[in-house]
Parts: sequence; C-alpha cells; structure tokens
Amino acid sequence: MTHDCEWRPNGLVTWTTDFGLQNAFVGTMRGVFHSQFPEGRWVDLTHGIPAQDKVAGAFELRHAHGYFPSGTLHVAIVDPGVGTDRRILVAEQDGHLFLLPDNGLLGGVLDGEIRVWAPESAPWELPNRGFTFHGRDVFAPMAAALAGGRLIPGVEDRFPHWDRGQVLRPILQPEGHFELTILMVDRFGNAVTNWDVSHSGPLPGGAEVRIGSHAVPIVNTYAEVPCTGVLALIDSHGHLEIAQRNGSAAEYFALGVGDVLQLRIKP
Amino acid sequence: MTHDCEWRPNGLVTWTTDFGLQNAFVGTMRGVFHSQFPEGRWVDLTHGIPAQDKVAGAFELRHAHGYFPSGTLHVAIVDPGVGTDRRILVAEQDGHLFLLPDNGLLGGVLDGEIRVWAPESAPWELPNRGFTFHGRDVFAPMAAALAGGRLIPGVEDRFPHWDRGQVLRPILQPEGHFELTILMVDRFGNAVTNWDVSHSGPLPGGAEVRIGSHAVPIVNTYAEVPCTGVLALIDSHGHLEIAQRNGSAAEYFALGVGDVLQLRIKP
Amino acid sequence: MTHDCEWRPNGLVTWTTDFGLQNAFVGTMRGVFHSQFPEGRWVDLTHGIPAQDKVAGAFELRHAHGYFPSGTLHVAIVDPGVGTDRRILVAEQDGHLFLLPDNGLLGGVLDGEIRVWAPESAPWELPNRGFTFHGRDVFAPMAAALAGGRLIPGVEDRFPHWDRGQVLRPILQPEGHFELTILMVDRFGNAVTNWDVSHSGPLPGGAEVRIGSHAVPIVNTYAEVPCTGVLALIDSHGHLEIAQRNGSAAEYFALGVGDVLQLRIKP
Repeated sequence: MTHDCEWRPNGLVTWTTDFGLQNAFVGTMRGVFHSQFPEGRWVDLTHGIPAQDKVAGAFELRHAHGYFPSGTLHVAIVDPGVGTDRRILVAEQDGHLFLLPDNGLLGGVLDGEIRVWAPESAPWELPNRGFTFHGRDVFAPMAAALAGGRLIPGVEDRFPHWDRGQVLRPILQPEGHFELTILMVDRFGNAVTNWDVSHSGPLPGGAEVRIGSHAVPIVNTYAEVPCTGVLALIDSHGHLEIAQRNGSAAEYFALGVGDVLQLRIKP
Repeated sequence: MTHDCEWRPNGLVTWTTDFGLQNAFVGTMRGVFHSQFPEGRWVDLTHGIPAQDKVAGAFELRHAHGYFPSGTLHVAIVDPGVGTDRRILVAEQDGHLFLLPDNGLLGGVLDGEIRVWAPESAPWELPNRGFTFHGRDVFAPMAAALAGGRLIPGVEDRFPHWDRGQVLRPILQPEGHFELTILMVDRFGNAVTNWDVSHSGPLPGGAEVRIGSHAVPIVNTYAEVPCTGVLALIDSHGHLEIAQRNGSAAEYFALGVGDVLQLRIKP
Repeated sequence: MTHDCEWRPNGLVTWTTDFGLQNAFVGTMRGVFHSQFPEGRWVDLTHGIPAQDKVAGAFELRHAHGYFPSGTLHVAIVDPGVGTDRRILVAEQDGHLFLLPDNGLLGGVLDGEIRVWAPESAPWELPNRGFTFHGRDVFAPMAAALAGGRLIPGVEDRFPHWDRGQVLRPILQPEGHFELTILMVDRFGNAVTNWDVSHSGPLPGGAEVRIGSHAVPIVNTYAEVPCTGVLALIDSHGHLEIAQRNGSAAEYFALGVGDVLQLRIKP
C-alpha cells in the first residue's frame, strides 16, 4: 500500500449528526472512540440536524470546518442509506480530513479540488456490527483509526466516482429576478437562503427581497431597521438571510425550509 | 478499612441524567467535578432522559456502558427520591464502576453478578448541601473521589439489599402470543420494545408483530421494505424495534412509551 | 501598559449562550477557540438560554460560576445588541474572570466589589469579522487570548461606567405582603422566584405563597407534601421556588416567566 494522503492528524475530531441528544447514541459512539484512541479529543459540532436532512448537515459542516485548526478530522453522519451497500468516504482538502457516507453529503460540504478515497471499512468495524447504527459500529472506529494515524488511505483506495449530490442554487428567472430557496431556519427564527456569496457573488445593487407582497430591505446590521422591523442581510455564513429585529422572521412570514422567495432589482 | 473493590479508574466518567441542557444543572456539576479532580475526563452520555423516567435512564446506560474502556466510572442520576433517605450505591461489574441512587435504576442497568456497596456519602458532600440538587452536592464530589482514587469502597460498605426494581419482560399469553411493551421512542420515531435478545433469546421463526389489525414484517434492514414501509427488526441495542423506512413509526401507529403490542407466530 | 488584573488562568473556560445546539454555532466558536488556544479546556455551562433573555443568562451564570475552580474564565453571550457599538467587558471577582457584552448581563451575575475593564476587541477579532456572529468572530478569540494569558487587561482599560442592568427584587406592598416574580421555569416545571436568600434574607416565619386563591406551603423537602402536592421551598440556587411533587408546578398553576405571586405572612 502506498500512502496517498498528506493530512497530518492533530487529535481533534468534530462530529455532525442527526442523532439528537435525548438518547445515548452520541455518548455510545464516544465510548468506542475513546476506547480505541484514548488521547483523541472529541468536539460536538452539532447533533441537531433534522432527521435525514442531508442539506442541513452539509450546510453546517461547510460553514464550520474552516474555523478548526489544520489536522482536524470532521465526521458527518446523516445517513438514510445505513444498512445498504453505500460506501464510506474519506476526503481531504486544505489540511482538513472528512469521514462521511457516500450519499451526496460531501458535495454540499466542499467545492473545488478534493481528494477522495473509499477505504474498506471491514477491517475497522466492531465485531458483530449491526445494520442500523454504523455511527457506533463503523464510523467511530474508523474515526479513531484515522485520527490516531493507523488508517491512512492509499492510492488503491482512490474513489473518483463519489456522489456529488445536488446543490440548490439561485435560479435566474426570465423576468429578471432570482428565485431563492430557504435552506435552514435557526433558533432565532432567521431564515437562511441559498444565495451564498462564495458561489453567487455579492448581491446586485438595488436588490430587495420579495416575500409575497412584502418588500424586505437589504441592510448590513439589525440596527438599521426599526425595533421589530424585518430585514435581509448577508449573514455570518455568507448567505442572504431573512431576519426580524428582536423577533422571528420565520414566524412573521411563516417561512420554512424549502420555501421560495424572490430577489428582485428595484425598478 | 479493607479495600473491597478491584476496579482501577482510567479517569473517564460518563453522566446519564434527566436534567436536560436548557439550564446549567449539568455545567454546575461539572464545575464541582473539575474542582475536585482536575485531570478527570467528563463524557455526557445523555441528559435527555424524560423527567424521573428510571426505565429510560437504565435502558440508555445498560446499552451504552460496555462501549467504554475498562476503568470507566458511570454516574446515573434519575432520582425522584432526592431529599429522602434513599442510599447512594456504588456497583462494580466487568471493569466498570457505577454510581447511582438506590431506587431500582441499577436492576435495569446490570444483570448477573454485581458487587454493590453503599458507602457513606457524608464525608464527600459539599458543605451546606441542600435537599434538591444532590447531583451537584453529593454525586459530583463522590464521582470525583471515586474516579480520582480517593474513595475506595470497603468490606464494611457492602450492601446486598439494594433495590432490584422491576424489569418489564415480554409476557407469554395463553393464546400463544407474546405481549410486548414499548420502552422508548427515539428521535427518528423508532419504537423500542422490551424484547431484548440477551434475555428473551432470538425471535421465534415465523414471527410477526401485530399492531391493531396491522401485521408488521420482521426484517434485517430497512432496505427490505418499500420506500415508506413499516417494519420490525432487532435494533442496535439488541431489542425488537418498530420502524418506518424514511418515516416515523411512532407517528404512523401513534405509539408511545408503555403501549402494548403483540408478537405472533404466523399460522 | 500596566497589568491590572490579578486573575491567573487555569485553562478552563465555561460558555453560557442563547445559541442552542441545533446549529453549529457553538461548535464553530469552539473551532476558533481550539485553533488559538489548543491546550484550553472548553466547558458548556448551557446554550439553552431563551433567545435574548438576559435575565435567564445572568441567573444561570450567577449560580453556577462559584462551583468552578479559581482561575476559570466564564464567557456569557446573550447579546441582542450584536452589531451595534456596545462594548465588551472583562470583569474579575474572587479568582473568577468574566467576558460578556456590556448590556446589563454583568449586573445580574455579580454583586459587591467587581473590577471591570473594556479592552479594545479589535486586535483580537478574526479578520473580516461580520456584524452578526461576534461569538465566533470576537468572543472566542478574546476568550482564547484571556485564558491563554496573552490578553491581560491594563489600567488604561478600566471601565467603571458599565451597564448595571435592572435586577428584579421582591416588592414589599403596603398591605404587608411581598410581590414576587417568576424568573425561570426549569425542565421539571419548577418555577423559580426572585426571592434570593443571599439578597432578601431567610423567609419570614409563618410565610406562605399565594397563587390566586391557592395557598402553597413552604417546606424543606418534596417529601413533606403528599404525592402530587404543591409546595414552595428554598431551592438549590437559594431562591424560593414553586414545585409540585412528581409533577410540574408550572403546568399546575399555568406559571410562566414574569408572572407575579404573593408571599404572605399567615394571619
């Protein structure tokens, strides 16, 4: 085997799942991880991804991973295909390593040049692994092996045919406006759209958001609108977001994931 | 005092409680723990146990603890009797140590040979301890003392008269079917029954689950049923579980904790 | 610059926010923190503070911080004014350091003698910081710098004009009873009032709580009332709390944050 991965582990491993915290799913994975890599450091990115929502899982990891130091391993498990024969991917970019199912997640997390492998999981799986909890039986031991430097993907593991998934982009309509889609609503009721400045560029001058008959001004800070005013701004993820000062835009406009808005240029 | 406990601490301590995460209850216990055992490593198993639900608390710890390395201390606090004179137990099995109230929890966590002590808590309690938050005032300092090797139960602390609690088992009915009970519903809407292969053995051949007039097939993986089909399988805990592919069985069948199902042998 | 702060960091940093755990806000801050202070130890106090509820955030940190060892840094971010020019405060008391926005939070956390600074945040901010997520862009790097000993407030940073906020105290009415206000409802349905023995002193003899026409007895432990009886007691925070044995007082009496009760002396 020829080592093919330039990543050097720093011992930190982040976890992004849809397992929630009301059961011991996450704690159990952590038991496996610490058993096999006692020096490892475990960081919860979030376990609050809505069940089986790959778009939300990719969104959170996409915008968070770059804030960790080089050498970090990021594990993401939103895996409706658990128990089927979907592969498990290892991907490398800019000093970060990723471990996740081959189900389109990766295409939502990373752009540009990515090195991707699909190493055999069998040698690392817990004995008697089941069909329904690969987080515990497969991902946790593979993460321990990767972060501990025992599993290093080789040339023979290269896997260019990974699932790119589908990424929703703003759609330019014949009438000249863009159709945007709500990707995520956070706990403050801010509704995040799919206008991402890193893909779509800065907002065109004179733009405003239309929600039904309501025109929502685009501003730089909450303080630019009156006390319970609604607004749109480029948020901390670099996405255009609909917000209400001291309130919940999602409630105000009855917005949910998948809803469609218009971005118009004011006449 | 003669030491009577062969457990050797590894510094890891897991926590299972019904305290939730919206208040600082858990964080405050952690302050006490780190104050008294700075090298200790704290792992949240789950704090999402429904309030005062001893069955759910025991279930989570039962199925999770074995994935941790030998030498781990597991603290479980689901304690409707806080403020009364119920004792606090220390139990040892297979290299794991447990610290929990004497209220039936332990009987749900461990089977077989268990060594149990009820050491005096008074020497370890915080000064001015109150009646309502023993997690902070009693359990956290005792956990720090156990995991730090300062508290070692002695022969004089042996306590054979601990509360075994009641464990719900499948009931064989005169008609030849088993009555099963729902123990837990997870965030994916999977409903876990009390058919536990480690007690009840493998499922009889030709079995099916009946929910009202609905016959639910028993399969090995979700992929064996159509896209939103319902199914039953032995889950990652070794329990028979009712699930819906890409959906919530608990919603589909309106199932909740305590509901009763039938396990029948197909004629 | 003259160092003006006697605090000596122990590497522990606690975090209290209203960010919730369903998104990666907390995980992202942690990435910044570990990037800049790899040896630091991160402890979640709670991220479940209701959105923008400064009273609840201050309450949790007030009652939790003293259980941590001397040398701990406590970060609290409940920050409706993010994006405005509100300052960021560093405060020191009894071997604990605090980092929080200057919006009244600090007055709810600490009493008595406090040393307060408002060091410039600009030298520590992430490049390209935005207007909406100062937890990631400002607080996390400042916390890393404080806990890592690189940022030490100097005499020139002293800031006596910090916002004391408003602390709700029990109000003695002309008729001789006190009006109390509910500050917080915990997950068990216990309703915590603003009678805090550390300010208001012990309860007067012969007192009872009146909720509408209901007289609620004041006791020491839950066990002093019948099985689903309602009661009031001095809780683990030192506050008078309304509870129901084996139930939820908040549901029983339909109590919420801000509701007003009476504390009367029985005739």
